[in-house]
Amino acid sequence: MTAQDYAPLTPETLAARLGALPVLAGLVGPAESWTVKEVGDGNLNLVFIVTGAAGQAIVKQALPYVRLVGESWPLPLKRSFFEYHALTRQAARDPGSVPEVWHFDEAQAIVVMEFLSPHVILRHALVEGRQTEGLGERLGLFCARTLFRGSDLSMTAADRKADLALFAGNVELCDITENLVFSDPYFDAPMNRHTPGLEPAVARLRDDLSLKVAAQHLKLAFSSRAETLLHGDLHTGSVMVTATETRVIDPEFATYGPIGFDVGMLIANFLMAHLSQPGHEAAPGDRAGMQGWLLGVVETIWGTFCEEFSHLWRTERQGMLYQASLYEDQGHALAAEQALADVLGMIWRDTLGFCGVEMHRRILGLAHNADFERIADTGTRAACEARALAMGRQLMLGAGALPGIDAVTAMARRMNKENHL
Amino acid sequence: MTAQDYAPLTPETLAARLGALPVLAGLVGPAESWTVKEVGDGNLNLVFIVTGAAGQAIVKQALPYVRLVGESWPLPLKRSFFEYHALTRQAARDPGSVPEVWHFDEAQAIVVMEFLSPHVILRHALVEGRQTEGLGERLGLFCARTLFRGSDLSMTAADRKADLALFAGNVELCDITENLVFSDPYFDAPMNRHTPGLEPAVARLRDDLSLKVAAQHLKLAFSSRAETLLHGDLHTGSVMVTATETRVIDPEFATYGPIGFDVGMLIANFLMAHLSQPGHEAAPGDRAGMQGWLLGVVETIWGTFCEEFSHLWRTERQGMLYQASLYEDQGHALAAEQALADVLGMIWRDTLGFCGVEMHRRILGLAHNADFERIADTGTRAACEARALAMGRQLMLGAGALPGIDAVTAMARRMNKENHL
Repeated sequence: MTAQDYAPLTPETLAARLGALPVLAGLVGPAESWTVKEVGDGNLNLVFIVTGAAGQAIVKQALPYVRLVGESWPLPLKRSFFEYHALTRQAARDPGSVPEVWHFDEAQAIVVMEFLSPHVILRHALVEGRQTEGLGERLGLFCARTLFRGSDLSMTAADRKADLALFAGNVELCDITENLVFSDPYFDAPMNRHTPGLEPAVARLRDDLSLKVAAQHLKLAFSSRAETLLHGDLHTGSVMVTATETRVIDPEFATYGPIGFDVGMLIANFLMAHLSQPGHEAAPGDRAGMQGWLLGVVETIWGTFCEEFSHLWRTERQGMLYQASLYEDQGHALAAEQALADVLGMIWRDTLGFCGVEMHRRILGLAHNADFERIADTGTRAACEARALAMGRQLMLGAGALPGIDAVTAMARRMNKENHL
Repeated sequence: MTAQDYAPLTPETLAARLGALPVLAGLVGPAESWTVKEVGDGNLNLVFIVTGAAGQAIVKQALPYVRLVGESWPLPLKRSFFEYHALTRQAARDPGSVPEVWHFDEAQAIVVMEFLSPHVILRHALVEGRQTEGLGERLGLFCARTLFRGSDLSMTAADRKADLALFAGNVELCDITENLVFSDPYFDAPMNRHTPGLEPAVARLRDDLSLKVAAQHLKLAFSSRAETLLHGDLHTGSVMVTATETRVIDPEFATYGPIGFDVGMLIANFLMAHLSQPGHEAAPGDRAGMQGWLLGVVETIWGTFCEEFSHLWRTERQGMLYQASLYEDQGHALAAEQALADVLGMIWRDTLGFCGVEMHRRILGLAHNADFERIADTGTRAACEARALAMGRQLMLGAGALPGIDAVTAMARRMNKENHL
């Protein structure tokens, strides 16, 4: 993991530098035929689409700093190493869920992978009011499979501990999550920003001692509870879709953490999509159908997650935890079911808590989301955001009491009609 | 961490092999003056006392297998590496609590350290009915200081993650804990044994589904919740005492885990000492004073732990969790106190759970303890052990409801008078 000889690619140099790779020559065609376009619209990296006579590829390269901010915020190249290793694990644990990786160059921090086409970033589709068939099922399966199969429920203890040690090196990206998600939103931190007009709601939230305590309990959980390999940044900007297909991308924030983190962050982004829809209306009420669909996706994600997790629990529980030798083999299959219910309950409470902080940090912290940002009228935007802030608080502080996902979507429907400014 | 050229020491070869070490020549005297005695009475390692003209030293060397069992149970030499690193961290976090390390040879798996004299193993002193002044305070301080200062409450996130990665290599010793503590006692595992006459109590316990579920929840907590660097084997056989002094030894099981693990295992061993005392009576009731003292030690350990942990929380909370920038600096010192109470509550529940499993595994698993083993009359021994089994169950299943350490010691007093066979 050295930066020796590292140099950022450009559209002009890419063919000369990568043209000799057999995998690219084979799948994209001879370098002479390539056209290269830089399309990175994320916050961190260079992303190139390479088009050749035989096909297309994505070339993603880390920069030694945060692209959004510049060289004043250095960020190590090794995030590319963690993205590569996360992608290969996700591909093994949930085949077909992520882009196929064709090549990895650690020193150059380059991952070459399958170009997804005609896929678009899910968040943009949601802002535009477009739907994807099977979205909730696919994401629920992705969460259940990657999170179950990356844990001590499935892996050998030695393999999981070795992998934990490997991903423990992803310090700087974890640091971003630890500070920007769990701390900055709850006080007047330098990098925060929020929509004008939101001040009263922000002030209430930052004066709420119980909420500030809950946020740090969640930070403790995120930083210490190494239950499984997380995607680590599983929002609707990390999902690509067509009308019928769903893929998950960008796991460079991968780290060992609590199962509920990925699920909670994902659900939060659908709840925010729901609450932002009134800001994207062309005519009053014309996003009502989209809003209903989004809450259906939330219900399906959680339902599918529980169903698949339970299925894997019953059929693939081969790790050292809750082992069959102690339960089924002793005629105590009911103990395995009792434990499953407890574990799902734990994941549920964690999910709601992480869901709440994600809703807060996207409105109060550094990294906002297009769902709200693309609402041009700041009054409307603030009204939508205030609902999300209020809902996030309820999820964080009422996590123990909410009986199921229906109660969450019912809350979202109610919040959508209320004024929380 | 290689075993190249590794060779076990013998009393005959030790002076020739280590005589040239300046630290030993200086602190023990010239090798010509040494006498060497092998005294290892533990389950795993070689331990030599080296006596010379100028002083004494302990030379501890790992064997590539479990000493108690033989070469059929291999165990890697690197446990010596983890013991060395744990000892240096404990010495820094709670100065004076552990033997001073004078030399470490990784390839030979040798740690040379201060010889504690006239210290004896605490467990033996307790069996003999002897007391140590300040014991509970010292152990409570040790737990609070090492566990607080090894966590994200105190360390930088990068340092803790690097240390987590380092100790993640201690796989084989963790495996012993994971299986022998959390699983084997709860079914008829091959290495288990128990006192004749205990069968009805054992059968009840192994038919208790809720207990078997609780044990695996605790295993999940142990294996996934990397809150701090644990001692990992903190029982009364890992403590050396005089009438007035207390030191902690043998941290080769060191791993990142939940704060309550060390505290719970430690308290369990005092509760077992308490419940075993009737088996060591020379005349009826002549251990009543010792029993009262032992429960006092339990109360002092927990009380001191809470007091010191709270003190460190208020004065040394410099890590990324519950940071002052979010609380005190915003005029919300009360949030820091609210969070402290929650965190102590979490540690309390964990402590009781881990306390319970430790009580079970010492009676039902492979590694028993002298407190019970030295009771010659098996009927008496089984009666004492049955009480400990019943109490362990109450602690594991009632952990949320017990209001404080007084309730635990009151339970121990009551159990001591009851028949649980």
